[in-house]
Amino acid sequence: MTTNALESPDSFVRSFTALLAAKNIDAASAMISSDCEYDNVPIGKAFGPQGLRDTLTGFFAMCESLDWEIIRQSATGDMSSAVVLNERIDRFVIKGTTYELPVAGVYEIRDSRITLWRDYFDQAVLLQAFTAASS
Amino acid sequence: MTTNALESPDSFVRSFTALLAAKNIDAASAMISSDCEYDNVPIGKAFGPQGLRDTLTGFFAMCESLDWEIIRQSATGDMSSAVVLNERIDRFVIKGTTYELPVAGVYEIRDSRITLWRDYFDQAVLLQAFTAASS
Repeated sequence: MTTNALESPDSFVRSFTALLAAKNIDAASAMISSDCEYDNVPIGKAFGPQGLRDTLTGFFAMCESLDWEIIRQSATGDMSSAVVLNERIDRFVIKGTTYELPVAGVYEIRDSRITLWRDYFDQAVLLQAFTAASS
Repeated sequence: MTTNALESPDSFVRSFTALLAAKNIDAASAMISSDCEYDNVPIGKAFGPQGLRDTLTGFFAMCESLDWEIIRQSATGDMSSAVVLNERIDRFVIKGTTYELPVAGVYEIRDSRITLWRDYFDQAVLLQAFTAASS
């Protein structure tokens, strides 16, 4: 991926989020470091592009579509070293039903790559959606 | 409360958090607006100083001590209008045992008062601590 000198940590995380919601794991993977920590707090951690792919491929296959809306976001630092935090509503459609998961995301950027992506949410809400979807 | 013109949204939220961890609900209440929304995402919402007090008094009485550590925080705006997001580890001691709750907090500040405080966490972790504490 070409590094755009004008890119900001804020826009970088917005692009990353939009690519994932478009199920474009290849392009999103190119934005993370090889040792990136991907932590779904109630569930567990995965690492690097392969960990991202392993975690999301099954979920994305289950979803007819996704819309991850960033409600609030704040970024500190620049593309060499930054912290970005956001509040999102992750919407996903399974079997024609739209589910909404309120999420708080924490990101670290080092040398123009995401090195940490940690999502906080209530696991019960996600399990409820999965249970309804598989019934 | 006297408004300090030099105060920043970042330091305001740090002070608020430290006051709460010291169980000083009176001083913390003076930092929030009369209609402040206090939302514990998996549990529910309360409003204003009385809502803050009603939500936390029982919990604080249960805890021998609290230590709410801010791991990462980012603020955008000034004391007239700001968004502050942080990642915390909320530690609390009940019957001699220390529990750790990973939390992501979202705050809005308007006119030098906190108008929104929303905490994201996995309810299962909190229930586990309460169950252990009450057994």
